[in-house]
Amino acid sequence: MFTFICKLRVRYAETDQMGFAYYGNYPQYYEVARAEAMRDLGMTYREMEEKGVVMPIAKMDIKYIRPARYDDLLTIKTTVPEMPTSRMHFRYEIYNEEGTLLNIGNTTLAFLNKDTGRPCPAPRWFTDKMEAQRTRSLK
Amino acid sequence: MFTFICKLRVRYAETDQMGFAYYGNYPQYYEVARAEAMRDLGMTYREMEEKGVVMPIAKMDIKYIRPARYDDLLTIKTTVPEMPTSRMHFRYEIYNEEGTLLNIGNTTLAFLNKDTGRPCPAPRWFTDKMEAQRTRSLK
Amino acid sequence: MFTFICKLRVRYAETDQMGFAYYGNYPQYYEVARAEAMRDLGMTYREMEEKGVVMPIAKMDIKYIRPARYDDLLTIKTTVPEMPTSRMHFRYEIYNEEGTLLNIGNTTLAFLNKDTGRPCPAPRWFTDKMEAQRTRSLK
Amino acid sequence: MFTFICKLRVRYAETDQMGFAYYGNYPQYYEVARAEAMRDLGMTYREMEEKGVVMPIAKMDIKYIRPARYDDLLTIKTTVPEMPTSRMHFRYEIYNEEGTLLNIGNTTLAFLNKDTGRPCPAPRWFTDKMEAQRTRSLK
Repeated sequence: MFTFICKLRVRYAETDQMGFAYYGNYPQYYEVARAEAMRDLGMTYREMEEKGVVMPIAKMDIKYIRPARYDDLLTIKTTVPEMPTSRMHFRYEIYNEEGTLLNIGNTTLAFLNKDTGRPCPAPRWFTDKMEAQRTRSLK
Repeated sequence: MFTFICKLRVRYAETDQMGFAYYGNYPQYYEVARAEAMRDLGMTYREMEEKGVVMPIAKMDIKYIRPARYDDLLTIKTTVPEMPTSRMHFRYEIYNEEGTLLNIGNTTLAFLNKDTGRPCPAPRWFTDKMEAQRTRSLK
Repeated sequence: MFTFICKLRVRYAETDQMGFAYYGNYPQYYEVARAEAMRDLGMTYREMEEKGVVMPIAKMDIKYIRPARYDDLLTIKTTVPEMPTSRMHFRYEIYNEEGTLLNIGNTTLAFLNKDTGRPCPAPRWFTDKMEAQRTRSLK
Repeated sequence: MFTFICKLRVRYAETDQMGFAYYGNYPQYYEVARAEAMRDLGMTYREMEEKGVVMPIAKMDIKYIRPARYDDLLTIKTTVPEMPTSRMHFRYEIYNEEGTLLNIGNTTLAFLNKDTGRPCPAPRWFTDKMEAQRTRSLK
């Protein structure tokens, strides 16, 4: 439904003594990719929180195929497969500079009212932006 | 088959501005739990690497149920459900001090020859230790 | 004036491809040591924040002497050289299991009112605890 | 002598419950800035290691002036004040989007032979690149 591309370079801090990017860094890479995807949709996650909605992660899975290495400039392809309801799905594919698929991940995020901590539906102003973007991309 | 318990306290560095432990820290918590489980089995992951075998992660999934907070003393219950073959499974449950289940995770690790990078079976000296421990615990 | 000891084991996540603990992890180790020092003094940093005072870092310096390695069980010796006023000093020495001094660090923390973000003196209930502990240790 | 500019956006993972970028993340920001500075000089730190030289940090100091916040696009100004000898100095200034100076840091790195772990002078091919760049910039 929506696809976004962002680039990210592996930091030395993110490597481990195996010589690869540590497996626990990918959730952080996904966070960066998700934030850039939302920015491309016309709003930022920072605004989301400022408007009183937080989006904690409910589920994540990762399939590690090949390792990333220090200084690799990764390409992260982020897909939002469907309009969010009370939850929002993101799918990630990470490629290195040779175009090799390194890993695939999925995250499911909830929408929560920041003050009450209670679940809420995706804000209307957010889904409206997504609809507008979808309409534009169909033309 | 095998169950291990370890404790870990949430660092300030690990919180985020939502006021909870960041979702991307759990793989690191699982790593600590896994390392302590192996130590309890009578060998350390450090020795594993010194003997020429590395264990990169092939798959991970996490279900986030409740958040952990700064300074929470977490209890991680690690289960090894079966004897390792060419892969090894670990299952994790994290509880806070009130005994609330915060999250559940699974990781699958591969055994690789450190020099060649090729898959190999679980080392015999490792599975022997596990068998010995199982036998002891059955008595 | 006050000296505290705590132990901390180097995580795999904290190593880098040089095979050592990454230099940027030490501030986090110092945070753990500082938090344990405050716990030993009879209050926790969590309580400090709950009572409306935050302690951001104003200055830090680190001298790196020898590297720490994966799975090393480090000993951190934390010293509070004087009673806090509007600032509080901590000094850290990290040793490995062989007793080798790995690094030395200093941090200066400010006391800020959490709501206003303005500097404030060290809370009286905190300095009272420190005085009581000093008196006890002198006996 | 040499000045480089790079941009870096604060990740959610890097915030803490105070709502700011955690103080222990700046060494990692400095690492990114240093790596980009070296890339601008015509070689990468990855190549440095591939050619058998590692550059561990010997000293660091940081003065924290104002906090960085989530999603801030930081500007890091990196200065190399003099030609490296057996050590290399980097100075960093981090600014937010409003141009406010957030912090100032210094790091001193050593040059070590990767195989022996012994100190060595800055490689000739590296200082030659720096000289060439200096000459170009003077024209």
